[in-house]
Amino acid sequence: MSQLIDVDLAKCYRLLNHGPTVLVTSCFDGKHNVMAAAWAMPLDFDPPKILVVIDKTTYSRQLIEASGEFILNIPCRAQAAQVLKVGSASGTQGDKFIQSGLQTIPAQKMAAPRVAGCIGYLECKVIAEPHNQQQYDLFIGEVIASQADSDVYSEGRWYFEGHDDKRTLHYISGGAFFSIGEQFSV
Amino acid sequence: MSQLIDVDLAKCYRLLNHGPTVLVTSCFDGKHNVMAAAWAMPLDFDPPKILVVIDKTTYSRQLIEASGEFILNIPCRAQAAQVLKVGSASGTQGDKFIQSGLQTIPAQKMAAPRVAGCIGYLECKVIAEPHNQQQYDLFIGEVIASQADSDVYSEGRWYFEGHDDKRTLHYISGGAFFSIGEQFSV
Repeated sequence: MSQLIDVDLAKCYRLLNHGPTVLVTSCFDGKHNVMAAAWAMPLDFDPPKILVVIDKTTYSRQLIEASGEFILNIPCRAQAAQVLKVGSASGTQGDKFIQSGLQTIPAQKMAAPRVAGCIGYLECKVIAEPHNQQQYDLFIGEVIASQADSDVYSEGRWYFEGHDDKRTLHYISGGAFFSIGEQFSV
Repeated sequence: MSQLIDVDLAKCYRLLNHGPTVLVTSCFDGKHNVMAAAWAMPLDFDPPKILVVIDKTTYSRQLIEASGEFILNIPCRAQAAQVLKVGSASGTQGDKFIQSGLQTIPAQKMAAPRVAGCIGYLECKVIAEPHNQQQYDLFIGEVIASQADSDVYSEGRWYFEGHDDKRTLHYISGGAFFSIGEQFSV
């Protein structure tokens, strides 16, 4: 049965190493939001850091700058329509959880919600870099908690065989995605 | 027949949007190198900027800081063994092009070589951000030229159907990769 397992923080970069599109969740003062981001990646191993681009015009940007926290949720193929929906609307125009039907589960270490049904989570504290944030919309997060779905992640690795609905999404443009494909070794 | 076509710079982020592993080539004062990097992504649309993490211990770092230039080459499944080889060795210990068998073609706008047989290229000028480079090994590049393989890229989009050997690589760890999978719309 699918369950969330803790991911060793020193190896949590592996959740993002192959370049999946993510959902960014945030919360401040009772308000929450979720947005899609194709531009997220690991920055360092241990302590683990990640990068994500959060545009100035987004509602999430306000919540993240006010709270100093955000979560990278790794969605899967079963959620593609909802990912597209929250990637196309703004949280200033209504609650995107309600609009998309995405449900939430509590985070382990912060107030922001996690998106239910995602296959991986990285809870991040903002490492303040005002120049990067202002000039490039670029945020650095230190990962302080991480979990993944035991159906597709074990012993520090993704294994998607037999779980096509849980394959990671890789956004192209215009409503099109790739799902991640075959694993192989050389 | 496969040929390289120019990519509209305002859309060249799409070469990286789905998170492929890249090869970074560089050159300075007659010395050149190639390294693998899983940590690269778009940063901005127009003018196009990209991010890549280049560790201080690498030979490529010396060449890139000296020249102020580098190229992101997007390798494909047919090149996986060579990508792994240049990702495992250091350019301080011999010519990695010779060791790996990777061949080169000239770049359009810089002295660094491009890796022959790759399916996409982004030629980048370093935007100097000394704090990011020193503190995080993080480099920002402005893309000044970009091409892609007409077999798998046209009208601003990747299309890999029928070209499994040219699918992008997405590094996992321990010598294992994903190739990118099915394209779908929602």
